Amino acid sequence: MSEEATYPERPGGLERLSLNQETLKQWSLPELAAGCVAMGVTRVGLWRAPVQEYGVERAAALMRDSGLDVTSLCRGGFFTMSDPKSRAAALDDNRAAIDEAAALGTGTLVLVSGGLPGGDRDIGAARERVAEAIAVLAPYASERGVRLAIEPLHPMYASDRCVISTLGQALDIAERFPADQVGVVVDTYHLWWDDRAPTQIARAGVGGRIACFQVADWVTPLPEGVLLGRGQLGDGCVDLRRFREQVDAAGYRGAVEVEIFSSALWARDGAEVLAEIAERYRRHVR
Amino acid sequence: MSEEATYPERPGGLERLSLNQETLKQWSLPELAAGCVAMGVTRVGLWRAPVQEYGVERAAALMRDSGLDVTSLCRGGFFTMSDPKSRAAALDDNRAAIDEAAALGTGTLVLVSGGLPGGDRDIGAARERVAEAIAVLAPYASERGVRLAIEPLHPMYASDRCVISTLGQALDIAERFPADQVGVVVDTYHLWWDDRAPTQIARAGVGGRIACFQVADWVTPLPEGVLLGRGQLGDGCVDLRRFREQVDAAGYRGAVEVEIFSSALWARDGAEVLAEIAERYRRHVR
Repeated sequence: MSEEATYPERPGGLERLSLNQETLKQWSLPELAAGCVAMGVTRVGLWRAPVQEYGVERAAALMRDSGLDVTSLCRGGFFTMSDPKSRAAALDDNRAAIDEAAALGTGTLVLVSGGLPGGDRDIGAARERVAEAIAVLAPYASERGVRLAIEPLHPMYASDRCVISTLGQALDIAERFPADQVGVVVDTYHLWWDDRAPTQIARAGVGGRIACFQVADWVTPLPEGVLLGRGQLGDGCVDLRRFREQVDAAGYRGAVEVEIFSSALWARDGAEVLAEIAERYRRHVR
Repeated sequence: MSEEATYPERPGGLERLSLNQETLKQWSLPELAAGCVAMGVTRVGLWRAPVQEYGVERAAALMRDSGLDVTSLCRGGFFTMSDPKSRAAALDDNRAAIDEAAALGTGTLVLVSGGLPGGDRDIGAARERVAEAIAVLAPYASERGVRLAIEPLHPMYASDRCVISTLGQALDIAERFPADQVGVVVDTYHLWWDDRAPTQIARAGVGGRIACFQVADWVTPLPEGVLLGRGQLGDGCVDLRRFREQVDAAGYRGAVEVEIFSSALWARDGAEVLAEIAERYRRHVR
């Protein structure tokens, strides 16, 4: 979705809500489509692996036939390796991700930059390699109607997953490119702790850089590996509504994508979890 | 130790090394004293609980008799609660911590601010409560020759342990007070990911605010609860020597305190671990 899209209010209040597929990993793509339609959710964020498994064209047709808008594809990126062969392979894989995004009809490919290669202690140089990869990919994406969206991940992922940790760092790279080619992701789970996030959201808004807005809550204790412990909306300490108001004040008019990686949510009935998300979204975000 | 203290070089190269007691939690205080003396380590950082258990005056005498300098006491803080009774109790406990630091002859009390109270979603207000508590405590500490050292902890602890996550935030509070009353802790484990850390270290140096420099390495995967997975020096992705050079360039002349919380190190023979630390310190920090 372009950030200029507007969502007329409907009684359900779920006009802007997009369900990121990974939140309900227990569902197949057809279950996801049927479940969203049943709940009045009209937007989804998809992931490459399940889409590839189902077939990209077939997934695109399923979403289209279900009246579902694909708000983002997760994810490209992982281009911090320094050896030429790995870098070339990463660029090829990202071109494939861009093609998949275009086929699905989404204008947004989320990028998770990658961590530090083994033995590497120079995180600044790794961030520069991210910028170099984006310089190569941005024109290719733009020609296919896809915008690259740099996602800063929480600093606890800086070594093994994403060397871009703050919205400021993401913007420092994005702003080297035209705004219609490279934007950023604002994700409450990753940014809630940062006192500079409000200023950086405003900066992103002025530049028209907010490509995607994702919500999840922060709860502790963190599980081993810190990947699957995100909180259901309202269960944690993040002021989700304040974040939504900040991106709105910055001019963002796109979807609010619920992306919660939680082994607890995956263990439950999908329809029950989605109903809970809808209720929490109305209460804590909208 | 005051930051102006200087350490003449000796053959062992361990002049600046201070062993934080929690790194070798398997050792009693007498074992710690004997182990350090045997290894040529002349400085230690102590923790309140084991010192209280052993007796504060007795611990002070043991350190003095062993020729050990106490570089810091960990820790005061945990004053983010909003109800008056809890806040009063926290202030009382911090006055006791200041008294203990004075009795041990250390000029530095490390402060870990505390997290968000249950149900609280306003991290900015919690940070302000930290500043208010420090305003009450700084004169009391100063009268006893103790400087309060605000420690920013990694953002993954922001909700449950420390709402101060960056050196910039710590300095924003510290600079409201005289530099001889309130300083900051620079800890590589907490700050390594932050591209603004070098600038903030320089800022801290200009203001004479670096009260304590602690080193540990960053390794993954993080364990459940993310408390006890710090890395032995050289095992992770932190450029420890660059950090040490940065604090030196900022005018810091104090101890380099090795503080590694690691269940793996605690399970090993203490003397063997300390010998390894000494070797790693020479290779990766000095």
